[in-house]
Amino acid sequence: MKQITSARNEQLKHAAKLLAHGKTRREHGQTVIEGVHLLQVYLQAGGEPLQVYVPENKRHLSEVAALLAQLPENRITLASAGVLSKISGLAEAEEVLALIEIPASGALPQQGDCVVLDRVQDPGNVGTIMRSAAAAGVKQLVLGKDCADVWSPKVLRAGMGAHFLLNVFDRADLAQWCAGYAGNVWATALSETNERNLYGMDLTLPAAWVFGNEGSGVNAELLARVTGCVKIPMAGQTESLNVAMAATVCLFEQMRQRL
Amino acid sequence: MKQITSARNEQLKHAAKLLAHGKTRREHGQTVIEGVHLLQVYLQAGGEPLQVYVPENKRHLSEVAALLAQLPENRITLASAGVLSKISGLAEAEEVLALIEIPASGALPQQGDCVVLDRVQDPGNVGTIMRSAAAAGVKQLVLGKDCADVWSPKVLRAGMGAHFLLNVFDRADLAQWCAGYAGNVWATALSETNERNLYGMDLTLPAAWVFGNEGSGVNAELLARVTGCVKIPMAGQTESLNVAMAATVCLFEQMRQRL
Repeated sequence: MKQITSARNEQLKHAAKLLAHGKTRREHGQTVIEGVHLLQVYLQAGGEPLQVYVPENKRHLSEVAALLAQLPENRITLASAGVLSKISGLAEAEEVLALIEIPASGALPQQGDCVVLDRVQDPGNVGTIMRSAAAAGVKQLVLGKDCADVWSPKVLRAGMGAHFLLNVFDRADLAQWCAGYAGNVWATALSETNERNLYGMDLTLPAAWVFGNEGSGVNAELLARVTGCVKIPMAGQTESLNVAMAATVCLFEQMRQRL
Repeated sequence: MKQITSARNEQLKHAAKLLAHGKTRREHGQTVIEGVHLLQVYLQAGGEPLQVYVPENKRHLSEVAALLAQLPENRITLASAGVLSKISGLAEAEEVLALIEIPASGALPQQGDCVVLDRVQDPGNVGTIMRSAAAAGVKQLVLGKDCADVWSPKVLRAGMGAHFLLNVFDRADLAQWCAGYAGNVWATALSETNERNLYGMDLTLPAAWVFGNEGSGVNAELLARVTGCVKIPMAGQTESLNVAMAATVCLFEQMRQRL
């Protein structure tokens, strides 16, 4: 076990930059995950953290100790209390921070169930949709270029570990992806006239679901290439659900039809 | 039309207190709604604001002007630019603020579809669930005593107008409500052993859905009185959806069965 007593330590400064800047995350292919729960899911999924940072005053908490017992000693660094909270974006320091490699994603998926996000910009929405996808059994996530940064602390927090249950394809050219995808591609769009009713569709075949920007929906170029637009029937006078709720409804209806 | 040029104006100080303090809202039976969209839904639902405050530099925006045209002149107050932003919790002032009476709710519902919230504490979750309820055709919302304040600015914002499409019963004794309710009462709970599978249930009869605290779920006393506990099947290793997503899945499955 190593020990750090100064926030000016080079490793910690690197971790702080990873937490703060998407550019640093992309340059190094690394990110930092915060908290016991995320690290638990990461380890369960077979992840091997590059380094885990633990405040000295929390190393003996039972759930922290249980995690540390799973790690080689040379991957654990103790930090004096207060040092870690300086680099974290949170008011209170998490029990653990882990420096990890961003999982490599390979070529864009050409088949199998996918969730595809086109300029979904709220970190909470991206994380929530990832959680719904994982819960509904979808294993591939494709993000276009202007989404909230999927490996940022806020999206990681909202995803509650879904990042490590999904294959994440980041910063994709969605029109190019769509042209190469073999299955049906469904978009939820409000203004299309030829919408299909979600509850009248056969959703048993592999499919990709495209969810679009909170304000403007799916972009026109991509919309022109999808198999069809889907409407979620609504009982009330409400005009719309937010994108995370709409995604949840669609993905669980797909799962229901396959039970 | 009246005019206000100072943030120390007594009316504005009252509105600021309503925005900031639940106690003030309850004492006066009033709240403040922010933004064009909320006021549109409020007016469409037949609401009559006590007073609408508009920054002078925004009164001629087309959507603001369209709203003001629906109001009696003596209900409109112009404020100099900058004065309204001081009392709002938002970084940028909304186009309009409206002082309204909190709709009276009457006796707790004994029949008909309900959504019931037991200590749901995140304002975003409460608002999102209200939006789902309205979209899925449920018209009654019962909140227990320790929920996020349903008439607070954050819940109003997240609800996107659902407050004015629902009958809202606030600060209810849920055990007492449950004893007097005639229909089925379903709770989503993770740890119950006798759970019903959501997709195997007949949801065509009127029912109340109880959703619980983000961390601890539905409290034991209430859980002992419900008709049954419902489990949402999940395909992945994910342990749970957040409460707003779970509510969305249940309420839309109920709606689907009734289409």
